[in-house]
Amino acid sequence: MAGVVRMGAEPDVTVGPGTVAVMPTGGVLPPGADAVVMVEYTQEAMPGTIEVTRPVAPGEGVVRADEDVAAGAQLVPAGRPLRAQDLGMLAAAGVTQVSVYARPRVTVFSTGDEVVPPDTGKLRPGQVRDATATALAGLITQAGGEARQGGIIPDDQAALEAALRAALATTDMIVISAGSSVGARDETAAAVARLGPPGIWCHGLAIRPGKPTLLAECAGVPVIGLPGNPRSALVVFRLIGMPLVYRAGGCTSPPAEPVVRARLARDVASAAGRLDVVQVRLEDGAAEPLFGLSALLSILTAADGYVVVPEDATGLGSGTDVDVTLYR
Amino acid sequence: MAGVVRMGAEPDVTVGPGTVAVMPTGGVLPPGADAVVMVEYTQEAMPGTIEVTRPVAPGEGVVRADEDVAAGAQLVPAGRPLRAQDLGMLAAAGVTQVSVYARPRVTVFSTGDEVVPPDTGKLRPGQVRDATATALAGLITQAGGEARQGGIIPDDQAALEAALRAALATTDMIVISAGSSVGARDETAAAVARLGPPGIWCHGLAIRPGKPTLLAECAGVPVIGLPGNPRSALVVFRLIGMPLVYRAGGCTSPPAEPVVRARLARDVASAAGRLDVVQVRLEDGAAEPLFGLSALLSILTAADGYVVVPEDATGLGSGTDVDVTLYR
Repeated sequence: MAGVVRMGAEPDVTVGPGTVAVMPTGGVLPPGADAVVMVEYTQEAMPGTIEVTRPVAPGEGVVRADEDVAAGAQLVPAGRPLRAQDLGMLAAAGVTQVSVYARPRVTVFSTGDEVVPPDTGKLRPGQVRDATATALAGLITQAGGEARQGGIIPDDQAALEAALRAALATTDMIVISAGSSVGARDETAAAVARLGPPGIWCHGLAIRPGKPTLLAECAGVPVIGLPGNPRSALVVFRLIGMPLVYRAGGCTSPPAEPVVRARLARDVASAAGRLDVVQVRLEDGAAEPLFGLSALLSILTAADGYVVVPEDATGLGSGTDVDVTLYR
Repeated sequence: MAGVVRMGAEPDVTVGPGTVAVMPTGGVLPPGADAVVMVEYTQEAMPGTIEVTRPVAPGEGVVRADEDVAAGAQLVPAGRPLRAQDLGMLAAAGVTQVSVYARPRVTVFSTGDEVVPPDTGKLRPGQVRDATATALAGLITQAGGEARQGGIIPDDQAALEAALRAALATTDMIVISAGSSVGARDETAAAVARLGPPGIWCHGLAIRPGKPTLLAECAGVPVIGLPGNPRSALVVFRLIGMPLVYRAGGCTSPPAEPVVRARLARDVASAAGRLDVVQVRLEDGAAEPLFGLSALLSILTAADGYVVVPEDATGLGSGTDVDVTLYR
């Protein structure tokens, strides 16, 4: 039992043939000692003599100086949000300032003569409160971005272009919650096309809901034109916008979304060649699909998560095991 | 085709025998119309005469005024954090202010003569930087709380009691990152016991790491005394502290943690009657357990998530399918 160190608060004592020293937690091993035993496993057999009541192996209770992190080793990898334990590791190493990516500034515009601010009291016939911009701000924040409200732009191509152009200079990403009528969509596309190269990547995605989505890049700023229906807009932004926000914030490994496995409670139809996003409610471990018009936000608020029907499937049968991505 | 409304921007036109009116998206159905068709599915056959080029069923393209949410219905349930779509639904209904729970104030104390602040440059022998308080602040924030640093209290029962007593009046929850030596633990317990009824619920949990955990309630404020090892402290706080923070913030349904199913790459030993929390790294869909002293933070920073070995198990064999809770 040579060189056992006892942790505790009593004065030093020695016992033959080994040395039993007393030291505080986190101290430096005294010369000659090669193990530490907790004071609970010792007793003072007689004054000045301590008995160690359990076997102690060399190295026990001892942490080498480089055992947690060796000099020169990476403390925390780049490309992911700092987790609680990463902050702890940095603090332990005395690193209290780290360079991080700035939160990407994402400006959200709503378009449409019929769209009015959420704080509008009584609506006139045909008016609709802007639900999408507020919800998008939530998703942008969740992905590490800083959401900025660009306001509601009337159906006027010149006004939209001017607003977008002003935002280009001060923002890292632009999101347009576009009117869903074909005229409004054309106006959005025309305004975006004039912002600068390379311009519009695509206009229309094989996804439901979310088909009339516009993806563009203008003067180095990604621009997403979302469908006018709030539900379609939120579905598309989750799948396409949030990964872009993460990436713009330097996050190459976005945190995992919570997923549960569940049995589909009813048949879900889908067209081959199209990705379908189906909202589901979880009930007793079964995933109950929620159907309804893409204009209905209540489908989203009632949902616990969603199921993606892959492009090559023509639907999923009742009883199929599916991955449900849960909302947080 | 009686009563079909065409959406678009052209002047009104009429076609017999039904009526084709032109209206903007989101408008109110004109009298006599019972369906809406998109302008894409119409063409002007001759001046003043419009042809609808696809069959239209009554009710198509029309949303009833109460179809999304009926008057008097619940917009968003209480007890969970507001999700993006919940914010959208509230905005759509014109609700721009909602009563929410305040973020619970959680004060974190570190104890121990050997503990020094993270910004301490060169350490003297036996000193250790306070990693736990910083990491706990991350977990508290993640659970919706407002983390407050109570500072580092020396191993002095009176000083600790005074600091805790002062915090009781201004905080909703107290967390003590306690010295792990039995003396320090006793001092923490003694200080907590004098704070007020009902006092200490338990001192010691059948969990590894995290055995020397103290749970108390003093004058209505929950008090958690965590083990001194940073890794043990973080493991216990995730399992016990975060649910308390969620609850104190009015969140009765905390958001789900992301979980993946993986095959255990190696045997994991555990004692029956004890919950074991094993850190794992995911490699090619397999969960590789990370073993090491509970003092090592690097185990936590290297881990992608953790596996819980239930109390009744005496270990898990290599190849077992396990649920890995992922860190975010």
